[in-house]
Amino acid sequence: MRENLAVVLLSGGMDSCVTAAIAREFYELALLHANYRQRTESRELKAFNDIATYYGVPKERRLIIDMGYLGALGGSSLTDKNIEVPQTVHSEASERQAELPVRGIPSTYVPFRNTHLLMTAVSWAEVIGAEKVFIGAVEEDSPGYPDCRVLYYKVFNKLVEVGTKPQTRITVETPLIQLKKWEIVKRGISLGAPFHLSWSCYQREDKACGLCHSCVQRLKAFSEAGYKDPIPYEELKSLRA
Amino acid sequence: MRENLAVVLLSGGMDSCVTAAIAREFYELALLHANYRQRTESRELKAFNDIATYYGVPKERRLIIDMGYLGALGGSSLTDKNIEVPQTVHSEASERQAELPVRGIPSTYVPFRNTHLLMTAVSWAEVIGAEKVFIGAVEEDSPGYPDCRVLYYKVFNKLVEVGTKPQTRITVETPLIQLKKWEIVKRGISLGAPFHLSWSCYQREDKACGLCHSCVQRLKAFSEAGYKDPIPYEELKSLRA
Repeated sequence: MRENLAVVLLSGGMDSCVTAAIAREFYELALLHANYRQRTESRELKAFNDIATYYGVPKERRLIIDMGYLGALGGSSLTDKNIEVPQTVHSEASERQAELPVRGIPSTYVPFRNTHLLMTAVSWAEVIGAEKVFIGAVEEDSPGYPDCRVLYYKVFNKLVEVGTKPQTRITVETPLIQLKKWEIVKRGISLGAPFHLSWSCYQREDKACGLCHSCVQRLKAFSEAGYKDPIPYEELKSLRA
Repeated sequence: MRENLAVVLLSGGMDSCVTAAIAREFYELALLHANYRQRTESRELKAFNDIATYYGVPKERRLIIDMGYLGALGGSSLTDKNIEVPQTVHSEASERQAELPVRGIPSTYVPFRNTHLLMTAVSWAEVIGAEKVFIGAVEEDSPGYPDCRVLYYKVFNKLVEVGTKPQTRITVETPLIQLKKWEIVKRGISLGAPFHLSWSCYQREDKACGLCHSCVQRLKAFSEAGYKDPIPYEELKSLRA
């Protein structure tokens, strides 16, 4: 019987799906999903609820928060419809799209996004008495994201320590942070993570596009791990050897 | 001519009003107001806009963000209508209200609230190219708020350093943090801060109640500084000697 509670940030993608699978080995789950009005939000929300149901998480331990104000801030192709989502498939056009205004930082970067998500998770954790917050951040997977690094989480945990009530003992856990993408797939498989319910595509909601950065990373991860990704893809001919 | 831009968190209260007056000595202002669905939000928003207009801040450098999801988290009397706002005027009833579930932390505490506000301010600052974020946090004024302490801001600035793009050089400034409340009034008077446009009451929107913790602190501060608070109050007979 697991008595302690952990908040898991569950976007609905493969990393957060595996993170939930890891967290539930030791904790009762409370699942937090942020709607920051990304293009594929309704599909991601479905993935969130499907995974929550799969793990038997009751409604009162699911929280969906509207962080639409992040969209109002602008600055990211995931929320700003005037910026095109870069595609990884090579073409002169996509290479031009990939020319970033700031070296090394993808245009899909939402300033300080993980920090916003974590803040909210910590606040909720404090309210419901959870002792852990799990986030599926992956350093290697997102080398350009400043808030996906080990050092960042170390400082963040220090901030939680000094910024919450003295009796609050919440720490943020990042079980995937130093794993390779294919290792995450293997870990998920070994824990029975419901990959078939997850969603990673940045662009489409019916079938995954297979072309956006997120799809390409996911397909590569499954391929390297030696498993078939169970979700449907639209354009796989050129990608499956 | 001030060329550099600073984001100022402007709730509309006396502290943020003085903070704006300080920031504009050196910076062009960009003003951020958070609606987290507090009881007196519409009055605070008016104060925000009045102060912004007073300082000639154009619409495109005013940002009002909906942080209503903080209300959804619960846990504070400022957002949760099931928790009564404690009053400072002594009575047996108010003393019972003031019995806090957690020692030393007021029930008006929103978990990690300043962190949410700061995050958003830093994200906006990054997008618009501002180099400073000003917040009118006051340590002595809010001894029970973990995120109103000097140490907290030190750690927060470290988080900004590691959590944003390498070329981002944003720091959070807390010019009031070690001032006493009456010193803030004096500083504001000397800078011509528009106190008459500010609003501090937690409970009422027409006239300030004069009874809630925020009103009592404000009245005491003006009294100790030797000035008359220019905003209208409802119940002042028992408070003005």
